[in-house]
Amino acid sequence: MAQLRIALAQVDTTVGDLDANADLVSSWTKQALAQGAHLVAFGEMTLTGYPAEDLVLRRSFVAASAATLERLAARLHEEGAGSIAVVVGYLDASATPAPAVGRPAGEPQNCVAVLWQGRVAARSAKHHLPNYGVFDEFRYFVPGTTFPVFRLHGVDVGLTVCEDLWQAGGPVAVARKVGVGLLLCINGSPYEQGKSFHRDELCARRAREADATLAYINLVGGQDELVFDGDSLVVDPAGAVLARAPVFEETLLTVDLDLPASNTPGTATGMTGQVAAGDGTMMEVSHIVLAGEPLPAWEPRPHQIAQRPDPVGELYAAVVTGTRDYVRKNGFRSVALGLSGGIDSALVATIAVDALGGEAVYTVAMPSAHSSQGSLDDAAELARRQGTRHSVVPIEPTVAAFHAALAAAGGLHGLAAENLQARVRGTLLMALSNEHGHLVLTTGNKSELATGFSTLYGDSAGGFAPIKDVSKTMVWALSRWRNAQATARGEVPPIPEEIIVKPPSAELAPGQLDSDRLPDYTELDAVLDDYVSHDLGRAELTAAGHDPATVDRVIRLVDLAEYKRRQNPPGPKVTSKAFGRDRRLPITSRWRERERD
Amino acid sequence: MAQLRIALAQVDTTVGDLDANADLVSSWTKQALAQGAHLVAFGEMTLTGYPAEDLVLRRSFVAASAATLERLAARLHEEGAGSIAVVVGYLDASATPAPAVGRPAGEPQNCVAVLWQGRVAARSAKHHLPNYGVFDEFRYFVPGTTFPVFRLHGVDVGLTVCEDLWQAGGPVAVARKVGVGLLLCINGSPYEQGKSFHRDELCARRAREADATLAYINLVGGQDELVFDGDSLVVDPAGAVLARAPVFEETLLTVDLDLPASNTPGTATGMTGQVAAGDGTMMEVSHIVLAGEPLPAWEPRPHQIAQRPDPVGELYAAVVTGTRDYVRKNGFRSVALGLSGGIDSALVATIAVDALGGEAVYTVAMPSAHSSQGSLDDAAELARRQGTRHSVVPIEPTVAAFHAALAAAGGLHGLAAENLQARVRGTLLMALSNEHGHLVLTTGNKSELATGFSTLYGDSAGGFAPIKDVSKTMVWALSRWRNAQATARGEVPPIPEEIIVKPPSAELAPGQLDSDRLPDYTELDAVLDDYVSHDLGRAELTAAGHDPATVDRVIRLVDLAEYKRRQNPPGPKVTSKAFGRDRRLPITSRWRERERD
Repeated sequence: MAQLRIALAQVDTTVGDLDANADLVSSWTKQALAQGAHLVAFGEMTLTGYPAEDLVLRRSFVAASAATLERLAARLHEEGAGSIAVVVGYLDASATPAPAVGRPAGEPQNCVAVLWQGRVAARSAKHHLPNYGVFDEFRYFVPGTTFPVFRLHGVDVGLTVCEDLWQAGGPVAVARKVGVGLLLCINGSPYEQGKSFHRDELCARRAREADATLAYINLVGGQDELVFDGDSLVVDPAGAVLARAPVFEETLLTVDLDLPASNTPGTATGMTGQVAAGDGTMMEVSHIVLAGEPLPAWEPRPHQIAQRPDPVGELYAAVVTGTRDYVRKNGFRSVALGLSGGIDSALVATIAVDALGGEAVYTVAMPSAHSSQGSLDDAAELARRQGTRHSVVPIEPTVAAFHAALAAAGGLHGLAAENLQARVRGTLLMALSNEHGHLVLTTGNKSELATGFSTLYGDSAGGFAPIKDVSKTMVWALSRWRNAQATARGEVPPIPEEIIVKPPSAELAPGQLDSDRLPDYTELDAVLDDYVSHDLGRAELTAAGHDPATVDRVIRLVDLAEYKRRQNPPGPKVTSKAFGRDRRLPITSRWRERERD
Repeated sequence: MAQLRIALAQVDTTVGDLDANADLVSSWTKQALAQGAHLVAFGEMTLTGYPAEDLVLRRSFVAASAATLERLAARLHEEGAGSIAVVVGYLDASATPAPAVGRPAGEPQNCVAVLWQGRVAARSAKHHLPNYGVFDEFRYFVPGTTFPVFRLHGVDVGLTVCEDLWQAGGPVAVARKVGVGLLLCINGSPYEQGKSFHRDELCARRAREADATLAYINLVGGQDELVFDGDSLVVDPAGAVLARAPVFEETLLTVDLDLPASNTPGTATGMTGQVAAGDGTMMEVSHIVLAGEPLPAWEPRPHQIAQRPDPVGELYAAVVTGTRDYVRKNGFRSVALGLSGGIDSALVATIAVDALGGEAVYTVAMPSAHSSQGSLDDAAELARRQGTRHSVVPIEPTVAAFHAALAAAGGLHGLAAENLQARVRGTLLMALSNEHGHLVLTTGNKSELATGFSTLYGDSAGGFAPIKDVSKTMVWALSRWRNAQATARGEVPPIPEEIIVKPPSAELAPGQLDSDRLPDYTELDAVLDDYVSHDLGRAELTAAGHDPATVDRVIRLVDLAEYKRRQNPPGPKVTSKAFGRDRRLPITSRWRERERD
């Protein structure tokens, strides 16, 4: 056996900021070195940030990424970090271009490199390209076909990138044939509820298939609609978890490993050249020796296995992380939102305060004639408890001016008059944003988005939608969870109880309640989950036990709201199917899930 | 030799309306029969409409498409059209499912069927799946691996779908090996400027490769951001065009062909079973005989070769078609737009009137203190010439109400005050839309979208953006072209000359001109074309001869406007790279094209 101390650097990159990302690698590498690590590994596309989308089709960007990598290798050596192996994701162009119709211009590849003693000692590229859910990688990358094995202190180490683990065959199959002691997988794997279970199961299965210890390194932090949760881990060749990093935190997970030395039977077969990858392709295997001999033995440190938080707390951390990073990475210092006294805006304000601090959160109550005094009081009380910068701007005179302007055209009635109030509020918030530089947060939840229960350019006006992918029932759950956390710490609950218990209302007409227009939220969310997330048709929905009348009502609302959904700002994706990134229906469609289907 | 009269049915389908699309097939098949055709071919995914996006992942939709096809076959036979071979695109599930991570759920395929005497005589599926530009087909379909050859009146006919023509190898290569007399290609190929040249060249090349007459059938009409131009054509085995349909029109192109009979040497090799497709895959070849013997000879009719319109006229037809179909297919009967007296809204009004008639177009002038009397007069004159329903709604009192509401918060200045005016206008138009049921058209052009020269929820508020993919310089060209057409017909030009010649201004501040904030439009559009459409970096842009200061200015504007661009409504894509469907940059990105790149 041979020993290695490896460090998994779970860091928060910024798309496009090559220099800052290189600084991040340098800084965490030095921390790893200080902890005595022999290898430090970073996530997928760390140098460019991930996903970089169409930026990867720009040759100047690809060239800048490759040049940054070379500079980084030299710099680390100069900084005294040349003798720790640095495994890092970056963007490069294929060395064997084969331009054709539909192949991405410039032949970009989603690459991983090993930096050692001032140079790029090995490179390879992601072999399996995901093109489902939030991923569009057939559009952006050409697949890698090489599998370099590098020997570090007597251990043979193989490299894979994210999807290479999710698909059968390819690098994992080659790793087994070639016989590596340690398989590194660098990832940009976004959070979604319940995904960690699949991730654990997958890592265990592939470790057994490769018959190697597997180290899984993930990114952390928000990028547009994605939130990376970290959750980096190491499993042994039998699939048992040896170490795990905490979620939603930048951290270094340092692990002492006992690994087969490369002269152990069953490893280091020396197999080289073209190897069948078990997926219908061949991969080119090469061997690079960084340091051939095992190190003298030392007493290993105990492994750290972080506990995952409970599912609701984990979800709360995801939306806070997504909000904080979107605001910060886009250069904003403050946010503004309308605080109605309802549960949705109360939760969004709380998320914003947890992300940015109360001083950076501008809450605005914008009462109309239909707003209750209770709502106004509840909003003010929330603002007081959380220390937001709160103001009150009544909308009645402005609404009246619109009515007067359109009197000659016949005036406004019903829904048109309701929407007008929401648009006056949206315009007020955007005016404050333009004047003072706040990012406007919208407060719509997933149940509203699904059913189109919102006003275009009204409550959906803004730059980021923290609870866009959170159902109404989960809005209540998160609010109660957050209050309970505070109570457990002996603090005043941030959200006044009145806000949580009152019946939901948009307060756009006298005595209006959400239940006038929508089914009960528990029933609605159950149907939405099956219709939206599982794509069940009408017959399947009723067979699953949903009330047929409710099913018809929900289907009708959802099918007609596609255009409205698209006009909403981005927000953190936290479920298996979010509106926006991974659900794309035609706007113009006459398809209706009808009885006879 | 053997003769066939084939009909290419270039029709306008509606996504999701299976019954209406089946009616369309029935109706055009009967017209083809009335013209004595032996075969009629329809475009890609005719039964479902194209592209159906995530609808294809719903099992109920796939099942409904397959059931509709079966019913259609029976119905055509009952209606006396059983003995004309009907080739039609539809959606079906793969007969050999192989579920795996990332493979589309339900294994949908982009299929083509041959209907004959009441049944589905042959089926196959698209082999090459495009996943670039506007296409995401790796996300939606599993590839086809069969190549059925059907014999009709002594001629062996092969089937391909769209991308099968654009890629080397696959069905075209198999067609040559197997020896078909006629190769049909059914398409959903969207219009873009200059594409017809590539299409012609491609058809000629593939006809020579297959050594067969090639019939190319395309869809026509608008679907969300895509506009299909038709342009169906037939080329002989040497690549010469035999017949061509007009663009942007539903039509039946009937063509008498002399084709090799299946007992001619070099054809009908009888090769069957697994055949290497020349692209690393094998395809299963089968033979189906519908009618084995050639027909008695007849005197062929002369071929029709439609002239393509000039490029500007073709573009004008594209945006009119896209606008008309979006309005109609979404169930609207009228549109509303702000008519400022500037060139952009003037052109959009003209497009709307050409698409829908003046009675259905509600133009609204919304003057402020900064609006010139000339602009108001020009708008009124345009409305008079085109017969729109015109009204004037001054915005000053409403703007003043907003200022008063925000006075306590410090008031609004500069850009915030400018944007407010645009948002009051947007809110007025949306109020009219909600009250009266008009679809709001936005009037922004591509140069504005690129540079973010617009107000979120202001002039970008609305349901459809007819000139979203048309540059400012092309806005002038289209306006002049449309006026010249009228003059040539002895009509009054629809757009008053004053509107075309005046210097562009948003009129949001005293004496304001676009040139205060943007480079000259000719220069701007040239840089945008290279930066946006060709993805050149800064160094390449200056090397291409663009002024470095202008390049820096334009790059900065474009890079910061991604979020704003995404919040615009859909609009017809007419260039090789439109914002939205085929250009997707991260919103959160620190990448800047800088000097040292």
